Amino acid sequence: MEKLRVNEQRLWLTHVEMGKIGALPNGGCCRLALSDEDKMGRDLFIRWSREAGCEIRIDAAGNIFARRPGLDNSLPAVATGSHLDTQPHAGLYDGIYGVLAGLEVFRTLNDAGIETQAPLENIVWTNEECVRFSPPTSGSMVFTEQLGIAELHQAKTTDGTTVGQDLQRLGYLGDHITMASHKIGCFIEAHIEQGPILEQQNKTIGAVTGIQGARMFEVRVTGQDNHAGTTPMPLRRDALTGATRMVLWLNELVADQGDDIRLTIGRFNVSPNSASTVPGAVTFQIDLRHPQMTVLNALEDRIRMGLAEKARQAGLGLTIKDICAFAPVAFDGALVAMIEAQAVASGYSVMRMLSGAAHDAGNLAALVPTAMIFVPCEKGISHNEAERATPGDLAAGANVLLYTMLSRAG
Amino acid sequence: MEKLRVNEQRLWLTHVEMGKIGALPNGGCCRLALSDEDKMGRDLFIRWSREAGCEIRIDAAGNIFARRPGLDNSLPAVATGSHLDTQPHAGLYDGIYGVLAGLEVFRTLNDAGIETQAPLENIVWTNEECVRFSPPTSGSMVFTEQLGIAELHQAKTTDGTTVGQDLQRLGYLGDHITMASHKIGCFIEAHIEQGPILEQQNKTIGAVTGIQGARMFEVRVTGQDNHAGTTPMPLRRDALTGATRMVLWLNELVADQGDDIRLTIGRFNVSPNSASTVPGAVTFQIDLRHPQMTVLNALEDRIRMGLAEKARQAGLGLTIKDICAFAPVAFDGALVAMIEAQAVASGYSVMRMLSGAAHDAGNLAALVPTAMIFVPCEKGISHNEAERATPGDLAAGANVLLYTMLSRAG
Repeated sequence: MEKLRVNEQRLWLTHVEMGKIGALPNGGCCRLALSDEDKMGRDLFIRWSREAGCEIRIDAAGNIFARRPGLDNSLPAVATGSHLDTQPHAGLYDGIYGVLAGLEVFRTLNDAGIETQAPLENIVWTNEECVRFSPPTSGSMVFTEQLGIAELHQAKTTDGTTVGQDLQRLGYLGDHITMASHKIGCFIEAHIEQGPILEQQNKTIGAVTGIQGARMFEVRVTGQDNHAGTTPMPLRRDALTGATRMVLWLNELVADQGDDIRLTIGRFNVSPNSASTVPGAVTFQIDLRHPQMTVLNALEDRIRMGLAEKARQAGLGLTIKDICAFAPVAFDGALVAMIEAQAVASGYSVMRMLSGAAHDAGNLAALVPTAMIFVPCEKGISHNEAERATPGDLAAGANVLLYTMLSRAG
Repeated sequence: MEKLRVNEQRLWLTHVEMGKIGALPNGGCCRLALSDEDKMGRDLFIRWSREAGCEIRIDAAGNIFARRPGLDNSLPAVATGSHLDTQPHAGLYDGIYGVLAGLEVFRTLNDAGIETQAPLENIVWTNEECVRFSPPTSGSMVFTEQLGIAELHQAKTTDGTTVGQDLQRLGYLGDHITMASHKIGCFIEAHIEQGPILEQQNKTIGAVTGIQGARMFEVRVTGQDNHAGTTPMPLRRDALTGATRMVLWLNELVADQGDDIRLTIGRFNVSPNSASTVPGAVTFQIDLRHPQMTVLNALEDRIRMGLAEKARQAGLGLTIKDICAFAPVAFDGALVAMIEAQAVASGYSVMRMLSGAAHDAGNLAALVPTAMIFVPCEKGISHNEAERATPGDLAAGANVLLYTMLSRAG
């Protein structure tokens, strides 16, 4: 008998269809968390999931749980999923693939008439990306009780609303639920790698052993607004010049920290941001990542001291606010081994690897056996409209997900 | 008989009243050109001017001409005025003072029952500040035919509207008029200095002899959006790091150019401006000023070459767009001398000086005898909520304006 396989073309066309919501001119899409586009993406996901026989539950963080009932629904669910929200200039796969791979697994099981002992769940986590509001992976943080629901509801979005208001407005504000009342037996997240390693190593499947640690800080540099035409250069307290010195110093600081270090200043806002005014304030965010906690601790100390020194030298004010911190995560050894074994059994090349990016799976790992399945993306490009993955690789990852879930669901 | 004087308290309270529109928490105000607040300020100005017996005319650029008729209205008007639009974190005086001083002159003449041979005009020019749209001093540029009215109407605002749409929406879109059909005999603009010189020299009145030259360029630096967690540092094409190198190089470049040089990067925008994405693009604006054309020319050449070199070294794309250029301006010698004489006759200390900031008067100077009257502002602080001027200094400037206008209007 032929081995059961997901439908490669259906999985691909599902991505194409979802990518039409918030479509961008260069082939990417933009569905910022809890925007109108995000709502449309969510609505579409729910329709597809219901058509695939799922029951839908929405929690107070806006997380969507699409449940395919099992023969014994008292068993904890074997769960998969990821996120549908995107970066501003995103591709069609980051997060989305994990959700649509889960859907394709359900459709494939339906087509084959397969029922499982344990129920299966496909979960859409709210705001993995942290564009309109903080922190990243907020939905899975709430579910795993690492973030209070009240704190999330009060968080301000870049549009001046609160997350609570947005959830209400979009019709995605459900009851608060956690692992205590909603049992999950394990969590397996499929995702594009978002890095160049699988492509370089010519492997189809990454069995992800863990996630590097990440910390984010918000730095505010304050000087004085003044007139561009009349204020002599030596009398200025120019926050932008001061902040640019800090940015370059941060880049120099990590230059000798080896291959695993990542330091990014992705958000950088100047105030009042007017052409003829010496800028009185700059706020920027530092995203620092490394697999080792000791390295992160040492760098954080050096960054705090170094920025304070730079501000002092320039006569500028400085505040540094913690935005979030993710400890390095180790995934469940047995689940990683199962992913590896299922990849081999399905005839795919596979390698163990670490995730450079944070994922919702990192939050789940503290409470249940968790692992991730990576598939290659072209040149490692992600958070970019040029993000690409092949139909064959996406199907390969979904097949490994299918068999890994079946191995756990009985 | 006592010498005619403006009403110091009335002038002061008029500033206080205008400052309530778009009031900010720290005592300043924000009335961006063609915003709802700007409309409210304009409406109030028109009401006050009508109450002072003025006829109102509005042109296609939204400029407001408040005319106090003379005994012989075939004579060209003796004109004053400035602007009511502000920077985002502005004080109560920059621009506003020139308009309200003109109004106070009219009120003072009314109180004394004085009629002039020539008509007087008090003009509110549109968008001196260049915050919501370019170029700066756009209203006076259109009136003096240095900017086409169609070009202004098509200009995009930072809110995504066009200037034409905004004028229409606010009810400030009149017929296109220029000096050819609307005759002005001279233009005298009162303004706070926006620099520290009068205060340092302990003078009340500055008789402004001209304006330094200014050029603005928009620089766009392009790299590649990518994921903050997965993209190794050496493989990044980070537009923000590249742009910060440029900003620091520009500051170094002008460090040995003497006291008269001004280089400001006031507007600086990062794209996609998301914490977990390596920025793929930065757009920033350079505001370069100096009293000598030769220095501006030499620096512009060095800037173009230097930035191209920096971009090449970093593997980044670069475009440089001209935003505007103002040649150094020399004001009318006879008018400057008259301002000086009237200051002395009124008992005020006076000095000749150059303007560090661009002003609408700079555009008028090409067509009619033009000059400016400066009064001190505290510590030279401007484009800032902490901008301050004293009631006595504001009245002194208005008295000099009164007598200079009378000397020309007969």
